[in-house]
Amino acid sequence: MFENKNQSKTNLSSLGEFALIDHLTNSFDLKNKSSILGIGDDAAILEHSNQQTIVSTDLLIEGIHFDLSYMPLKHLGYKAIIVNLSDIYAMNAIPTQVTVSLAASNRFTLEALEELYSGISLACKNYNVDLIGGDTSSSTSGLMLSITALGTSTKKPIVKRSGVQENDLLVVSGDLGAAYVGLQVLEREKAVFKVNPNSQPDLTPYSYSIERQLKPEARKDIIELLDEIDLIPTGMIDISDGLSSEIFHLAKASDVGFHLFEEKLPLDPEVNLICEEFKLNSTTAVLNGGEDYELLFTIGQKDFDKIKNHPLLTVIGHAVDKNAGCQLITGLGHQIELSAQGWKSFDAEQG
Amino acid sequence: MFENKNQSKTNLSSLGEFALIDHLTNSFDLKNKSSILGIGDDAAILEHSNQQTIVSTDLLIEGIHFDLSYMPLKHLGYKAIIVNLSDIYAMNAIPTQVTVSLAASNRFTLEALEELYSGISLACKNYNVDLIGGDTSSSTSGLMLSITALGTSTKKPIVKRSGVQENDLLVVSGDLGAAYVGLQVLEREKAVFKVNPNSQPDLTPYSYSIERQLKPEARKDIIELLDEIDLIPTGMIDISDGLSSEIFHLAKASDVGFHLFEEKLPLDPEVNLICEEFKLNSTTAVLNGGEDYELLFTIGQKDFDKIKNHPLLTVIGHAVDKNAGCQLITGLGHQIELSAQGWKSFDAEQG
Repeated sequence: MFENKNQSKTNLSSLGEFALIDHLTNSFDLKNKSSILGIGDDAAILEHSNQQTIVSTDLLIEGIHFDLSYMPLKHLGYKAIIVNLSDIYAMNAIPTQVTVSLAASNRFTLEALEELYSGISLACKNYNVDLIGGDTSSSTSGLMLSITALGTSTKKPIVKRSGVQENDLLVVSGDLGAAYVGLQVLEREKAVFKVNPNSQPDLTPYSYSIERQLKPEARKDIIELLDEIDLIPTGMIDISDGLSSEIFHLAKASDVGFHLFEEKLPLDPEVNLICEEFKLNSTTAVLNGGEDYELLFTIGQKDFDKIKNHPLLTVIGHAVDKNAGCQLITGLGHQIELSAQGWKSFDAEQG
Repeated sequence: MFENKNQSKTNLSSLGEFALIDHLTNSFDLKNKSSILGIGDDAAILEHSNQQTIVSTDLLIEGIHFDLSYMPLKHLGYKAIIVNLSDIYAMNAIPTQVTVSLAASNRFTLEALEELYSGISLACKNYNVDLIGGDTSSSTSGLMLSITALGTSTKKPIVKRSGVQENDLLVVSGDLGAAYVGLQVLEREKAVFKVNPNSQPDLTPYSYSIERQLKPEARKDIIELLDEIDLIPTGMIDISDGLSSEIFHLAKASDVGFHLFEEKLPLDPEVNLICEEFKLNSTTAVLNGGEDYELLFTIGQKDFDKIKNHPLLTVIGHAVDKNAGCQLITGLGHQIELSAQGWKSFDAEQG
């Protein structure tokens, strides 16, 4: 679906800056009523009447956040948008606009950037979001992307990280750990390819996990579901750095602790198989892996009936007194203190 | 004013990502009523009642947009904010919030980033703007900054590039060319320093131009002035890439041409002296130099009396029929077709 059949090469330096922006963005239409003016002036204009505007921003750097040896540019463009939309949904809000700035070295051709923008365009289309601005530049090394997403609140209240009360239930959407184990598979295939460039690996047994890594989706459907079943979470965050790190964010912002039940963690069967093959602990993959872009939220106990047995939602724990800390309760009933991860990119650079 | 007295060094990798963000941003207070929620959650919340939100974004990369051998980090932080605020003012709007994302290699210490943020903080304070979000990351090479600025319209209408009518007067604020010649001075001193690190140059004769390059200001005062004298420009843009390039933007967006009078161009006497010393044509410096961050706008002829003899504003030309193109009229009455510059960063990389 994402393969590049266009093999012609155009040097970026043969275009002017403004011609490049025009070229890359002229297929983007403004769809939201609030997008009054998009690319083409000093700034974009949004109009909101009595509406709150939600803003989120992310920087993605080649060699730190992505590896183009297994991440096709179209996927990268798609994922870069998704990562930011996920932050807006995690506020119980609806993304409406994005700005995309990019810097690319001379190694990248116009066609390569077109591939990147085709992924950005697809994500904008799938999530009904307008690209309203940006900046392009050369870089001395590799590709970097900076995305800012803007959104508005729904008819329901915005949900922050700070509203969790003791005894609230901790709920997660979908399943966890697949993006992380998918990355392990891709890293292994990259190493194999270096030794034998003619190898033709059969990646079918890993397809779900690889897709979760290369083409994640943001949980728009969950925000719509919460609206439908009239459920307002007390706290919410998206899972980008790993479950453990996100639980710590909720705990810190809300001044509570958490009990998390290992046996409740939702894993796709493929994740368990890959963990066995790679001799990984699946709980560790879930806790520290990240990039699942699922929603993690808390609800009052009185609301449990609204989500009971829903196939997309799993209760994985509950909030406790702050002094109890954040504890993983194992299948055998042991308590293990969770440790926060984060700052992965600096770690990665050193490792 | 900007010297760094704090010589201690802390490795970025010794901090967590979130600790670093907390550390760098905990001195920023929210000042605008519309900043409902700033850093510390997935996204920032802005509230505007019947107000338009203005968004502008820029990416600044070491080795492309700035050279740290003569640009102190505090100045860089200040300038990075100014560049974006200037875009908001150029819409006849008022900046209210910014997001700042940065990536830095291990070469940068915490203290270096603190210097950078002290400049960002000063610019936010001077222009009454709130820092409401951002992202930090490591980089494989050098420093990069991505800034997004948000603003709201004043009681007066937003001014785009596209409203210029034939015969409108072309007006510029302040004076032009100083930032460019200031850069020439700094480049020369860098070359001298490489040969003789003990040289102690007297830069006093160049102080205005160097300050225009290292610590530019955005023309908030001009937007306030326009409001006071009840003048609504028909088109407006800020001068970041050079007068010539900006005139082409106005011409293209408004479907007009321009006559620009060489003798009317406002230059500081210091700029003329530096041009003589460096054997530069001062008109070329003004047309192609850029980074002045002055406002370039058009007004109807009926409004001329409102700006006549104002010390901060100069009429430098007028709009003509599109087919006449964009022409520089020299002191001797010759017409020279203007050429658009732009895409400076890619050129710079090749040069």
